[in-house]
Amino acid sequence: MNVKDIKDPTFLKDLNYKQLNDLSLDIRNFLIDAISKTGGHLASNLGVVELTIALHRVFDSPKDKIFFDVGHQSYVHKILTGRANQFDKLRQYHGLSGFQKREESIHDVWEAGHSSTALSAALGMCIARDLDNKDFCVVPVVGDGALSSGMSLEALNEIGEEKRRCVIIFNDNNMSISKNVGALSHSFTRLRSDRNYNLIKTNMKRSLSKNNMGKAILSSLTNIKDHFKESVIDFGIFKEFGLEYLGPINGHNFKELIPALETAKCHDGPIVVHVITKKGKGYLPCEDDINGVWHGIGPFNPVTGRLLNETPKNCKSWSSIIADDLLKLADENENILCLTPAMIAGSKLEKFFAKYPFRSFDCGIAEEHAATFAASLSLSGKRPFLAIYSSFLQRCYDQINHDICRMDLPVVIGIDRAGLVGNDGDTHHGVFDIGILRPLPNIILSQPKDAKEAGDLLYTAFNTNHPFAIRYPKGTINYTETTFENIEIGSWTKHGNINDYKLIVMTYGEDVDKIASKIEINNLPVMVINCRFFKPLDNNMIESIAKEKKKVIIYETDMLIGGLSSAILEYINDHKLNMDIERIGIKDNYVTFGANNLLRKEQSIDINYLFDKINDLLMR
Amino acid sequence: MNVKDIKDPTFLKDLNYKQLNDLSLDIRNFLIDAISKTGGHLASNLGVVELTIALHRVFDSPKDKIFFDVGHQSYVHKILTGRANQFDKLRQYHGLSGFQKREESIHDVWEAGHSSTALSAALGMCIARDLDNKDFCVVPVVGDGALSSGMSLEALNEIGEEKRRCVIIFNDNNMSISKNVGALSHSFTRLRSDRNYNLIKTNMKRSLSKNNMGKAILSSLTNIKDHFKESVIDFGIFKEFGLEYLGPINGHNFKELIPALETAKCHDGPIVVHVITKKGKGYLPCEDDINGVWHGIGPFNPVTGRLLNETPKNCKSWSSIIADDLLKLADENENILCLTPAMIAGSKLEKFFAKYPFRSFDCGIAEEHAATFAASLSLSGKRPFLAIYSSFLQRCYDQINHDICRMDLPVVIGIDRAGLVGNDGDTHHGVFDIGILRPLPNIILSQPKDAKEAGDLLYTAFNTNHPFAIRYPKGTINYTETTFENIEIGSWTKHGNINDYKLIVMTYGEDVDKIASKIEINNLPVMVINCRFFKPLDNNMIESIAKEKKKVIIYETDMLIGGLSSAILEYINDHKLNMDIERIGIKDNYVTFGANNLLRKEQSIDINYLFDKINDLLMR
Repeated sequence: MNVKDIKDPTFLKDLNYKQLNDLSLDIRNFLIDAISKTGGHLASNLGVVELTIALHRVFDSPKDKIFFDVGHQSYVHKILTGRANQFDKLRQYHGLSGFQKREESIHDVWEAGHSSTALSAALGMCIARDLDNKDFCVVPVVGDGALSSGMSLEALNEIGEEKRRCVIIFNDNNMSISKNVGALSHSFTRLRSDRNYNLIKTNMKRSLSKNNMGKAILSSLTNIKDHFKESVIDFGIFKEFGLEYLGPINGHNFKELIPALETAKCHDGPIVVHVITKKGKGYLPCEDDINGVWHGIGPFNPVTGRLLNETPKNCKSWSSIIADDLLKLADENENILCLTPAMIAGSKLEKFFAKYPFRSFDCGIAEEHAATFAASLSLSGKRPFLAIYSSFLQRCYDQINHDICRMDLPVVIGIDRAGLVGNDGDTHHGVFDIGILRPLPNIILSQPKDAKEAGDLLYTAFNTNHPFAIRYPKGTINYTETTFENIEIGSWTKHGNINDYKLIVMTYGEDVDKIASKIEINNLPVMVINCRFFKPLDNNMIESIAKEKKKVIIYETDMLIGGLSSAILEYINDHKLNMDIERIGIKDNYVTFGANNLLRKEQSIDINYLFDKINDLLMR
Repeated sequence: MNVKDIKDPTFLKDLNYKQLNDLSLDIRNFLIDAISKTGGHLASNLGVVELTIALHRVFDSPKDKIFFDVGHQSYVHKILTGRANQFDKLRQYHGLSGFQKREESIHDVWEAGHSSTALSAALGMCIARDLDNKDFCVVPVVGDGALSSGMSLEALNEIGEEKRRCVIIFNDNNMSISKNVGALSHSFTRLRSDRNYNLIKTNMKRSLSKNNMGKAILSSLTNIKDHFKESVIDFGIFKEFGLEYLGPINGHNFKELIPALETAKCHDGPIVVHVITKKGKGYLPCEDDINGVWHGIGPFNPVTGRLLNETPKNCKSWSSIIADDLLKLADENENILCLTPAMIAGSKLEKFFAKYPFRSFDCGIAEEHAATFAASLSLSGKRPFLAIYSSFLQRCYDQINHDICRMDLPVVIGIDRAGLVGNDGDTHHGVFDIGILRPLPNIILSQPKDAKEAGDLLYTAFNTNHPFAIRYPKGTINYTETTFENIEIGSWTKHGNINDYKLIVMTYGEDVDKIASKIEINNLPVMVINCRFFKPLDNNMIESIAKEKKKVIIYETDMLIGGLSSAILEYINDHKLNMDIERIGIKDNYVTFGANNLLRKEQSIDINYLFDKINDLLMR
């Protein structure tokens, strides 16, 4: 069938197994074709085609609440709820979100972006339902990577205590974004083993042959399980959390999926349905990927699996620049270690992990633990580098505050994906970190303007005995091999028309050179200051600028509240200086998804807007 | 013996069981006596007397790293490491910290204050040790409440994978601060059951009779356990995390404790020693307390167990005021629910929990889950009140940002213990929340100046369809029963000499009335503005003040960076206003422990300092 004709999932109730399998094939083909053009999350969605179909067949959305942890694996759900015809604008400005969005559809009942919120959300829905004496199912779908994270386990702890009716779909592909880590993954592997699998399968079949579907089955199944529980069947961690367990189920076989979900639907209490799926199922380049390269991808050739947008020549991604420089520094200093919460591929740390397996640590989706683990390594004389996306760093604010900064420990934090990140949108933009880190005592917070400065800041960080954070954005930048030089902490640099200027632009990051170059081309009387440290500030430079009484624009590409200009305003006020400052930055709102240039335009923080402002001020 | 004579723990090696028991009694008597005078954490320390002695007897501190999660239960450790003679200044300014502090002793190898960091810290120490080819034991002591929290479970997940030599002491008293909650507590109860207990005890005895202590025992014990593992012994959650398990052990019996620890010491990998202790052991008023009243206490009469510092007449604690008003509002609106992460007693929610057991939720030490759970309840039409200490709110910054504020959900957040908290010190001061919450879109952030305004803000919050945070400090304030009135959001009020003034003080919280009263008594030409909203600001009032061209002092009692004055400076700059502002607040440092008046003096934020500044400016 043409999946674009799907309006809502009710038609699924009438399909037989063959038709369901045909539909799966159609959806897979549609996904590969659509995402090859727009980019997006392919592998995780290919893995849940049958599961999502089965969920929408067995449950009645939106009455029953079906939702996906994180939500990047909700594409099939979007197709089944009538949004296939919007996939040409997937993750594009004013198009279809790559995550669940309540404003997009009544079938989207929860919004996320960060991992591991679904179980807490599910408990909230269950409690509210029961208080209101309503009757519907709550069906969160959680992957094994997300389930191992602390927040999910906290929620399981309360779900197991509350005993509300809830069907937890444990989507087990032994991967989070890349290969899964941690002791729990072995526990899951035990559950996944053939012995249990076959045993339950046999039991299910036996039950089904004797009874109609529904409570009768479950009771029979529970009896069988109870019989074997103590001696044979391993219910793993779910038993410890007081949860009923059903599985493992082959997540690509409707004949197993549908009866299992029907059974779970009748259970009066929380039950985990353990579904084994294969990430990338049905598309070989994805199936073979254990490093997470196909997790979130750009446009690609669907036949060859090759990405279309290759990195331009002489360019490198910011993540690669930092990762490669880190490797160079680690070659010289054996105390340098590398930590990441499940972002080896995203932060381009593959080479480090391959070369120094005993000095590199993938902590899984566990930002809190990762930051304190880094603090402790540092306390023990090691020099840990913690690579973490700006938006995920929000998850370990307390640990950075209390364990790293309070003890003034020299942890180097690489804040990847700082600033607007484009298509992933509001939950992934890294625009809050300056505001939350700047009030922390002892921290040094910086951002390089180019590849050379990135290396120099990293080199400087490892020569500094304080917490040192370096933020860098998504995307690529020109790159030439150089040697490392130390940077004076808190020092800014001058660019553009540094001799003859009427106006000063203070900014940071890769915009510095873009602005300077545009100033030079247009021969404008404007100096640009590269405020490469947010903390400490370059007090001398602020003092000297203030004396000149020239107009100043502070141009920021992160949240304006609490950002660079806020720091400068505080300094100026406290030192009784005067400065005529115009501030540009992200106003008090959450920024949607889409190409960064469009988002910048929408937020009035694009370079054209800056130059309109410059021209305006120069004319006065 | 006189425990003040103890210099270091080496003497423990020579004591026999009777002497060890005598020492325990001496330490208990000392603790009860000392803490009855100073206040402090009594119950948790009484529970770990034998355990701590046994640890210091079996392990060699500081070579071996013994440390306590949170650290408020490290008093016995402090006594055994030569600090008994400093207990008269426990938790007092420049005295003995209530937590472990590296600068206090070489035996304090980790610092905490917030729960659940010890396991991450332990892993860091183990990894650093192994990389350096050193040989010592890492011995974190973790309570069952802390162990159930997400961060601990994240750490266990990596510890189980890394398989480093580490002796994890699981101090199980079935309490965190108050009675423990969550499904895992039932799992722990199963472990605690007599069957296992006796079985292991028997095995231990059998092993001990056949072998010398050491590897031989462990191997024998492991063999016995292996034999029974599949069929009889329940290793609970530890098995799922791939950890060896030894226990449960009676934590008040040296004859069980010492052999178990000796055995664990020889184990080559991570091993959990499950020790059953009784919080408050040996002091009846503590033993009987299941609500956590004796967790952290003020001075008391050791004979009667009555607190000496009763709340003054006509006064109520801020926590009680908010909690009682919440209950009144909940009586009228059945959608109002109450959530707390393990702080029922601290936030005075006992009455709410008793009256509305189905509308109140103790989430355990699980701030991340609690905040998202609240978001989901709100999304489902409920009106959750999340009571959370300012300093613990740091643990759920991301969830408040992404799940509450991003979805603009009307969760009311009661930020308890905002501002300096006195004796608990740097890890517990609630001085960062303004800086981290102010940049969040959609949030309303407020603080009442008195009891009446607290109720009115709470009333207003539940009539508002946005995230609404109300911060309130530790301590008590005058209280009279009144009715609720709505407060215009973002409105400030004028006090002091509002008609004839040369200077304006902008401040918030209970200092407003103190300052106003001092102004009136001294008839000073000073107006005080009660900036009861940090966000949104009272723009009209700022505009009108700016026009008057009078001197302004912004007096803050939290971190100056990113606080109220920062917000005002941003507004003034962006609206091209002028204001001669002097800022008072906590400068860029972590504040130590001690009485708040001494801390305020040290930080130059006490009212005397303010009035010196006022007089100074009035004289100019």
